[in-house]
Amino acid sequence: MCSKQNIYDNETFFNGYKALRADSVNYNILLEQPIFRKLLPDLIDRYVLDVGCGMGDSCIFYEKIGAKKVIGIDISNKMISEARRRTNSEMIKYYNTDMCDIEKLETRFDVITSSLAVHYIQDFDSLLKSVYHSLNSGGYFIFSQEHPLTTAPLQGVEYTYNENGDVIHYNLSDYMYSGIRKVEWFVDDVIVYHRPISEIINLLIQNNFIIEQIEESTPSNNALAQCPDMSKEFHKPSFLFVKAMKK
Amino acid sequence: MCSKQNIYDNETFFNGYKALRADSVNYNILLEQPIFRKLLPDLIDRYVLDVGCGMGDSCIFYEKIGAKKVIGIDISNKMISEARRRTNSEMIKYYNTDMCDIEKLETRFDVITSSLAVHYIQDFDSLLKSVYHSLNSGGYFIFSQEHPLTTAPLQGVEYTYNENGDVIHYNLSDYMYSGIRKVEWFVDDVIVYHRPISEIINLLIQNNFIIEQIEESTPSNNALAQCPDMSKEFHKPSFLFVKAMKK
Repeated sequence: MCSKQNIYDNETFFNGYKALRADSVNYNILLEQPIFRKLLPDLIDRYVLDVGCGMGDSCIFYEKIGAKKVIGIDISNKMISEARRRTNSEMIKYYNTDMCDIEKLETRFDVITSSLAVHYIQDFDSLLKSVYHSLNSGGYFIFSQEHPLTTAPLQGVEYTYNENGDVIHYNLSDYMYSGIRKVEWFVDDVIVYHRPISEIINLLIQNNFIIEQIEESTPSNNALAQCPDMSKEFHKPSFLFVKAMKK
Repeated sequence: MCSKQNIYDNETFFNGYKALRADSVNYNILLEQPIFRKLLPDLIDRYVLDVGCGMGDSCIFYEKIGAKKVIGIDISNKMISEARRRTNSEMIKYYNTDMCDIEKLETRFDVITSSLAVHYIQDFDSLLKSVYHSLNSGGYFIFSQEHPLTTAPLQGVEYTYNENGDVIHYNLSDYMYSGIRKVEWFVDDVIVYHRPISEIINLLIQNNFIIEQIEESTPSNNALAQCPDMSKEFHKPSFLFVKAMKK
């Protein structure tokens, strides 16, 4: 079944995450968001759902570029409250709903998006079935997630450095072992699910999605200037992006 | 343009490669071939082309499982001579032709395959255009190649071992730097071309192929029993497999 992990309602985690997102030099704003937004189709007059909407940044953006109706769902009540507080539009609705319960919204969407959330889901197959059910024919599912190279190591993300402190390589292990990973991020033992890229792609295809585009994160020159440490992305990308169309 | 590298006609390389393939405990037979063959559609009465056919193993197999006509091409004259020597069927033809010159065959195929060859090609986009042109509508292009995790490091494939000699991780670097790599394999400076997985998938899609299945190599229990060193595949797969259909 779908995972019901709700780490974002943990006080320590939520405050850490909020502070991270408030800083404009972060991986979301400099790296993830620009690549993600380039994958979006024209949203004018479209019905859009954002799954794992967090503090509502994507929903607010979708409404701004012309979406007719935007729904954001998140399992974290704290996130939904924060999203509502930040939003000034009647066109955007937020619900404190698990991403596995999309079908309960009883709405069909033209575009369903999800930014950095699906790696929290144990049963990706179930999520895809729900997304498929709730998309109009020809509609898009566009998502980003932690790159499988990032989630692979059972020991967590580690690099090897030379004596000058430069990265010489990323320590890749366990890539083909699909399954649970415990990672530290603000708190101990945040649970994510590692899937090799072939597993992700094949599950989409088996669920009648057509793969339209795949991206792996690389920083722009602007991002590198603000955050030189992002050159590590050239050794091992942090994020994977998929644009898929419902057949 | 397409690369005309013909390392297989180098005497040292050819003899080393032939000896490797003659040994039944090798990565081709134990790892690559079983995964590749599971991707094949029904070949009965089909026209099949194998690109970079080497010593003809695949062509001979395709004829055995019912293909009506099989053509194998290879840039290496030594390989083509060896393939002809091993083949006892009028249904199979071999040509000493570069893989970028598929269109010159003036035949349309139902299935085009290529086993561990496309990483030698500089201009993958050109190859895909040729393959597309020479496939019947709804036909399949099925290929394996060195996995991008294998071709990524500018310094070549290296692992880090613990004091017992067990692999603790693969040294991954330069994954997002698409381009030329010089590797040692029997001789110095065999040239391969590294492309991140997103680049490979997107080029296929841009050339009007539909991605049907992706596989990354993992050894069977039988393969592991014969070659325990293959457990390294779980850290970093050696091969990537793609099954794509012409729209």
